[in-house]
Amino acid sequence: MSAVSTKLFHFGISTETFDFCKIFQDIKYVCCGGSQKRIVNLARHLADRFPINKPYGFMPENLCKSDRYVMFKVGPVLCVNHGVGQGSVSIMLNELLKLLKLANCTDVIMIRIGTCGGLGLAKGTVVISDSVVNGLLEEHYEMHILGKIHLKPTKLNKTLGSKLLNIAEELKYAAVIGKTLSVNDFYEEQARVDGALCDFTFEEKINFLNKAYNFGVKNIEMESSCFAAFCCRAGIKAAIICVTLLDRLEGDVLNPNDPFSEWEKRPVEIISRYIEKEYFKISK
Amino acid sequence: MSAVSTKLFHFGISTETFDFCKIFQDIKYVCCGGSQKRIVNLARHLADRFPINKPYGFMPENLCKSDRYVMFKVGPVLCVNHGVGQGSVSIMLNELLKLLKLANCTDVIMIRIGTCGGLGLAKGTVVISDSVVNGLLEEHYEMHILGKIHLKPTKLNKTLGSKLLNIAEELKYAAVIGKTLSVNDFYEEQARVDGALCDFTFEEKINFLNKAYNFGVKNIEMESSCFAAFCCRAGIKAAIICVTLLDRLEGDVLNPNDPFSEWEKRPVEIISRYIEKEYFKISK
Repeated sequence: MSAVSTKLFHFGISTETFDFCKIFQDIKYVCCGGSQKRIVNLARHLADRFPINKPYGFMPENLCKSDRYVMFKVGPVLCVNHGVGQGSVSIMLNELLKLLKLANCTDVIMIRIGTCGGLGLAKGTVVISDSVVNGLLEEHYEMHILGKIHLKPTKLNKTLGSKLLNIAEELKYAAVIGKTLSVNDFYEEQARVDGALCDFTFEEKINFLNKAYNFGVKNIEMESSCFAAFCCRAGIKAAIICVTLLDRLEGDVLNPNDPFSEWEKRPVEIISRYIEKEYFKISK
Repeated sequence: MSAVSTKLFHFGISTETFDFCKIFQDIKYVCCGGSQKRIVNLARHLADRFPINKPYGFMPENLCKSDRYVMFKVGPVLCVNHGVGQGSVSIMLNELLKLLKLANCTDVIMIRIGTCGGLGLAKGTVVISDSVVNGLLEEHYEMHILGKIHLKPTKLNKTLGSKLLNIAEELKYAAVIGKTLSVNDFYEEQARVDGALCDFTFEEKINFLNKAYNFGVKNIEMESSCFAAFCCRAGIKAAIICVTLLDRLEGDVLNPNDPFSEWEKRPVEIISRYIEKEYFKISK
């Protein structure tokens, strides 16, 4: 452990109050997603499911001491939320990687789970990203560092992606691997016409979504660019598993009768099985 | 009220469950900030302070039904949090403007309050933004819409800014008006060398911060680009009031002995007095 105190500002924790090595050194997987509630549920699910030492009547405790993020440790898995949009993801990943370095963690795998809009896919399809394109359909994440543009590659780990796809198929989920379009807005940048401001027509929207579809884009969301670029730069094996809640070629509005909570369990089931197989050596 | 149901997805509310006109039509001010806790505190403060009809023992209730944002109504003021980063702000503003339109609100003023790093200013200085520059020191916000780059102006309302500065001066706060540098990252894009990844030297960092300072930049944060661009496009009178927690020319780490909670009250005190004067006609 470093002699000088290090504070992870947005997690609200520091090396003064936590012995990072002692607490976190056995972390092998980081599972993250946008909403705090989803991560609370993920941590409780993994705690019930994995063969870890957990006394009866206990549940995972939020380790973050700020109101910005939540973080739970479940055996070898750290579950953290990253909020909405690339900027929020960026802060979480910086502080998370500092934590992993301070704790001397090695060979950590990072998986983002989430929901998304699909392109030409049945609703409820699992999309595993193999690379991420920005709103210009370019395969990089743009950063502005010291007044200059930097384009960071957004490739994801192929072997890890294939393993996760195999598990999705074992589970009989509709699942594909492909490009993810990741922007920094839910409305105009995702070609939605139902935001508060919109200067394009319905026809122009459909033309763009078809162009993206023909380019190999399977789904659209707003966190994967930064996530993929950061993990790529840091040399971390990473994957992104999202489930589509609607087909954006068909419309923009969710059907309230669709079984969203069932669909949202699919990425969770995939990572649970993956960690069971790889870490706990449990086959189903 | 519109006959067709409209859902504000990330607020978790819709015209089916809320009569927007009835509830929100008297809104004249929207006050927003990043953290949920800060907005809870703001709403409670305004509720205690303003001469509005509030039965003893009651406090403002969170009107959002999702876990993404919180929103409170205190008389003519809507207090909403916008999360971290431009993408999160963008969603909140789209759904907020849809709400204001559905409620037939007119002449609404929007004010963002927050904390920031200062450039060449004493800690605790109030910075009122007159325009916002991006990480390339350009005065616009870049959006990627339907595969094309759009540069949106980020000018803020001069009259409103001057009024707020006058109030800050009445309150004897150190206060300035100037450019805000707004990026989408807390670490590298803000020229911090203490993130998990950093490819530049301390000297390069200081050179960039000095360049920004000489260009008229007073403070650095990560939400104002999108906020200013959106309000500008929507024709909404808007202002941004941030308080500096440190001088980035002096260092990157907060001094835990500084009175942050006192400083954070300054933007709150300014908007409270402003609304007291303008709306409630109370002079102090």
